[in-house]
Amino acid sequence: MATNEGHDTAPLFAMIGAVSPVLVPYTQERIVGELWHRPGLAPRDRALVTLAILVSRNAALAYPHYVNKALDSGLTGAEVSELLTHLAFYAGWPSAFGAMPVVREIFAQRGIPAAQLPEVSPALLPPPAPAESAARAAFLAETLAPVSPALAHFTGDLLEGEVWRRPGLTPRDRALATLAALATLGQAEFFPSYLGRALRLGVTAEEFGEALAHVAFYGGWGLAIRATLAAKPILAAQPA
Amino acid sequence: MATNEGHDTAPLFAMIGAVSPVLVPYTQERIVGELWHRPGLAPRDRALVTLAILVSRNAALAYPHYVNKALDSGLTGAEVSELLTHLAFYAGWPSAFGAMPVVREIFAQRGIPAAQLPEVSPALLPPPAPAESAARAAFLAETLAPVSPALAHFTGDLLEGEVWRRPGLTPRDRALATLAALATLGQAEFFPSYLGRALRLGVTAEEFGEALAHVAFYGGWGLAIRATLAAKPILAAQPA
Amino acid sequence: MATNEGHDTAPLFAMIGAVSPVLVPYTQERIVGELWHRPGLAPRDRALVTLAILVSRNAALAYPHYVNKALDSGLTGAEVSELLTHLAFYAGWPSAFGAMPVVREIFAQRGIPAAQLPEVSPALLPPPAPAESAARAAFLAETLAPVSPALAHFTGDLLEGEVWRRPGLTPRDRALATLAALATLGQAEFFPSYLGRALRLGVTAEEFGEALAHVAFYGGWGLAIRATLAAKPILAAQPA
Repeated sequence: MATNEGHDTAPLFAMIGAVSPVLVPYTQERIVGELWHRPGLAPRDRALVTLAILVSRNAALAYPHYVNKALDSGLTGAEVSELLTHLAFYAGWPSAFGAMPVVREIFAQRGIPAAQLPEVSPALLPPPAPAESAARAAFLAETLAPVSPALAHFTGDLLEGEVWRRPGLTPRDRALATLAALATLGQAEFFPSYLGRALRLGVTAEEFGEALAHVAFYGGWGLAIRATLAAKPILAAQPA
Repeated sequence: MATNEGHDTAPLFAMIGAVSPVLVPYTQERIVGELWHRPGLAPRDRALVTLAILVSRNAALAYPHYVNKALDSGLTGAEVSELLTHLAFYAGWPSAFGAMPVVREIFAQRGIPAAQLPEVSPALLPPPAPAESAARAAFLAETLAPVSPALAHFTGDLLEGEVWRRPGLTPRDRALATLAALATLGQAEFFPSYLGRALRLGVTAEEFGEALAHVAFYGGWGLAIRATLAAKPILAAQPA
Repeated sequence: MATNEGHDTAPLFAMIGAVSPVLVPYTQERIVGELWHRPGLAPRDRALVTLAILVSRNAALAYPHYVNKALDSGLTGAEVSELLTHLAFYAGWPSAFGAMPVVREIFAQRGIPAAQLPEVSPALLPPPAPAESAARAAFLAETLAPVSPALAHFTGDLLEGEVWRRPGLTPRDRALATLAALATLGQAEFFPSYLGRALRLGVTAEEFGEALAHVAFYGGWGLAIRATLAAKPILAAQPA
């Protein structure tokens, strides 16, 4: 089976070095050598987070390297597939579709067959606990529906009722990827609900903190600072 | 005359299905089959809104399908042209320019001649009513000019004084497209002026609500939620 | 040496004119003829600001013209190189990498050799004055580190400790480019620290105001309005 080792990065770094020489060691030493090897977040999760960031930024040129890296780091083809489905909702359909040609080609190169991809209609995971389900229903009915019945409908029926309950990605992985996407999309205003949910689903505060450094390098520094400022009071209010 | 029916979507869906099988029925059944057929917003207006969203996201891969769909749904070539002029200001010059090659090719395929495009210097529509004109002049003089005389100048002289008064797109269509663009650009903070203006120009609250579901699918869910939260108090304050 | 005069814009304008005829005079007369010739900001600085905006928007189609224009306007190849290094941090790695192929080709066409590019490890400029250094250290330790030790580490050690102190671009130029990037990225919330810093480093309020009109045309109107609103109280609080 082909791996990322077959993906030669020498031409890329020759090109970068011909324009901005210092970005070569910054990339190789600080990002690849240091950031990706820090404790606190597994390489597989760093790859998950990075793909969520790249798709949110529509960073198509980076897909060949990072999709291969994700598959080399322990994400399965099925998980990459399901991640793109999930990101279609948060980053928008066109951003998810934009990643498909590269991913299809990599799936073919690696011999990942269609039979391994998530089913269209799998048995769904159970809905959230009654208290959370009731809170969500109230938000839909009282906040979204009066402005956009269509948005309330598709949020309840499709995004929450179906996508989040698909078994192709664990709820914990969905929550971690969603935090990275929201941060990268500049939407840290939704952390009060999404960060709390992620912590309940098993994302640790340490993992989240590591993910924010990926947002800084791959999405831009200001987005990571904004996300940090939004997260601080939420994390501080968590029971110890 | 060629139509979108000649635009074969089978290869696209084969590609999507080879990566994320469930995105095929989500797209064909939930977006194409359901969203686009809801009452409350005409198909022609859904196409207008969707183009505004796609250009705001610079979603170039989607242009061939959706420009054809817009022309099949009742938008004229002249309206598509004028919409791109308008979006140059809100989404930035590069995003509008990025749509031009595809649109030019589609105009050529469909035999839309240059003579049908909006004039460079048409007779302009009248300016807003005196009270609104005075309020805008005060905003330019008191808020923009002290920081950026250049921005105040081009806003008053060009964007408000000329672009919004060009007859190639009705003020109601401009207002609807601008709301979709602002929501997609994450700039719902400007709804206090733009949503009120849109309602006065004939956009209904129901049409706006339907447009937000297009923002969700084509631009990303969080942008639609943000826009909904920003719009709620404005809509609630409207006279019944 | 080749110049931008060899970069024929006639095909571009023929293409634009075949879709949106009025965007041709808007571009040639209002942007090229008027905006770029206003007093208050040097053409070289307008080019610096415009590159920062374009990279922040990932506007790849515009790079050939504007990189050449920058080099024709007085920016050196070394400054363009260092600007891209700087923007990698604020706009994210993929956006900076996306500009590299075009810049490398232009450097080759113009005969800008690798020896003229900024060194990987130059002698760094001195750190900020003790009071500012202490304020930054406190922000890292008290605000960033509790949420993301990794982000605090890379911000202090790399972005502030090294990048901002590299001599390839003056601190004043870095500050001006950063303001344009932050405005274009929708991150005017950071102006309280960055705009004050820029003014101390020699950017004038007039230069900043002119830069915002570039943000309007190249990044989109709402971003420029948002930046203006954020800057107003900061500028008003400056000593006369």
